[in-house]
Amino acid sequence: MAVTPELMRKLAEVAAAETLPRFRQFGSVSNKLAAGFDPVTEADREAERAIRAVLRETFPEHGILGEEWGGERLDSRHVWVIDPIDGTRSFISGIPLWGTLVGLLENGDAVAGLMAQPFTGELFFTDGMTALYEGPGGPRELVTRKTTQLADATLCTTTPSLFTAEERPLYNELEKAVRLPRYGTDCYAYAMLAAGQVDLVVESGLQPYDIVALIPIIEKAGGVITDWQGGPAEKGGRVLAAATPELHAEAMRVLSL
Amino acid sequence: MAVTPELMRKLAEVAAAETLPRFRQFGSVSNKLAAGFDPVTEADREAERAIRAVLRETFPEHGILGEEWGGERLDSRHVWVIDPIDGTRSFISGIPLWGTLVGLLENGDAVAGLMAQPFTGELFFTDGMTALYEGPGGPRELVTRKTTQLADATLCTTTPSLFTAEERPLYNELEKAVRLPRYGTDCYAYAMLAAGQVDLVVESGLQPYDIVALIPIIEKAGGVITDWQGGPAEKGGRVLAAATPELHAEAMRVLSL
Repeated sequence: MAVTPELMRKLAEVAAAETLPRFRQFGSVSNKLAAGFDPVTEADREAERAIRAVLRETFPEHGILGEEWGGERLDSRHVWVIDPIDGTRSFISGIPLWGTLVGLLENGDAVAGLMAQPFTGELFFTDGMTALYEGPGGPRELVTRKTTQLADATLCTTTPSLFTAEERPLYNELEKAVRLPRYGTDCYAYAMLAAGQVDLVVESGLQPYDIVALIPIIEKAGGVITDWQGGPAEKGGRVLAAATPELHAEAMRVLSL
Repeated sequence: MAVTPELMRKLAEVAAAETLPRFRQFGSVSNKLAAGFDPVTEADREAERAIRAVLRETFPEHGILGEEWGGERLDSRHVWVIDPIDGTRSFISGIPLWGTLVGLLENGDAVAGLMAQPFTGELFFTDGMTALYEGPGGPRELVTRKTTQLADATLCTTTPSLFTAEERPLYNELEKAVRLPRYGTDCYAYAMLAAGQVDLVVESGLQPYDIVALIPIIEKAGGVITDWQGGPAEKGGRVLAAATPELHAEAMRVLSL
């Protein structure tokens, strides 16, 4: 399987060519859902188109599932899962915590993936072997922090308002138990977990394209990522990522009350 | 008054030399307040030391007030106000939304200032004439967005938990009235307001060093920044920044209920 660092860089590059020139520009934001505020930009659509073109050319037999342009060959053994801009609310607020996500499923398991933030020039990825960072400060291996206790943990979530009435008390309980909660982070939180900067990420209501790319990066960096029942996170929904198995178990105890 | 762009760049540079090598490093975080989690790093202390040295040499007659090293000559007509790392919680979470703040008071009014984010390589500043951006995408003038209605506005705050029991219902009311709320932004929110990316920033419990540098940047970019009573924001406390006078008036109506 030729999932090389070069391919990861190329995917990040073709996406950046569509997203970056449109970051901090306005006029192209449309509402995807009439019922709410779910902005989608030309950047989103064009970046996914560019990523799909590279994948189709490189792996003509693989399937592709994208946020913007749907699925093709989804019964293939290998399926690529794309979110061209995760964190569109950050994107339209000028805040560089959004990212391009591209992950690879093999028989339904996430085995490789990348998160790219082109404004900061950061790339977090795994080819299935190690988890790697490239960007300011120079390339290095991604390794999670060795935090085992909630009382020592930094916890990220995009916003507490994403939790349902049923989930919110569990989240609140977890937030009370940790040292430091942080909001507004989207996919950047998972990258920081892999990089040993934060210890927990808890979210709910995720789609597969929000999380598939991040699963192998966290796992290869030494972290644990599952749903709130401890099962696979590949299908999205309620997701818990932790820096260590011990911390994951601590957080699970609170979330499965 | 020789507050030149060159001086602004130099202040940003000497601060970055102390902050950036320590960003995404650990081991130097200590607790400043036993009662809470108020991390302060060597980066904070050394950056302020470096900024003070430049200011003392350039303006020996000016006063200086800093978060880390206190005040000197505070009865001077000109007083510099420094927060070496605003957003220490972002800093220790690896998230590049913290910034170095240096502002200048003249007889108590904020007249010049900078916000620098060295990881992204961004500098937002005013010498008292125009508000300027330097960084990725190239230099440009900072101009606020022309939003006049709450229903069209993006609102930023660092976290709703910073509001007191008295303030929280007012904030909640405002959050319900806007199009999009964003959390976790610290000083970066004010920079994005000046850059026309978001429309409102609401915070409380601020110190002068949290806000003095940002006031003239927002004002010279076309925005309005006051306390929640419409008075000067220089002393910190409850702060409201808006992209336009109309939007400021709309938000004031909610916050002064």
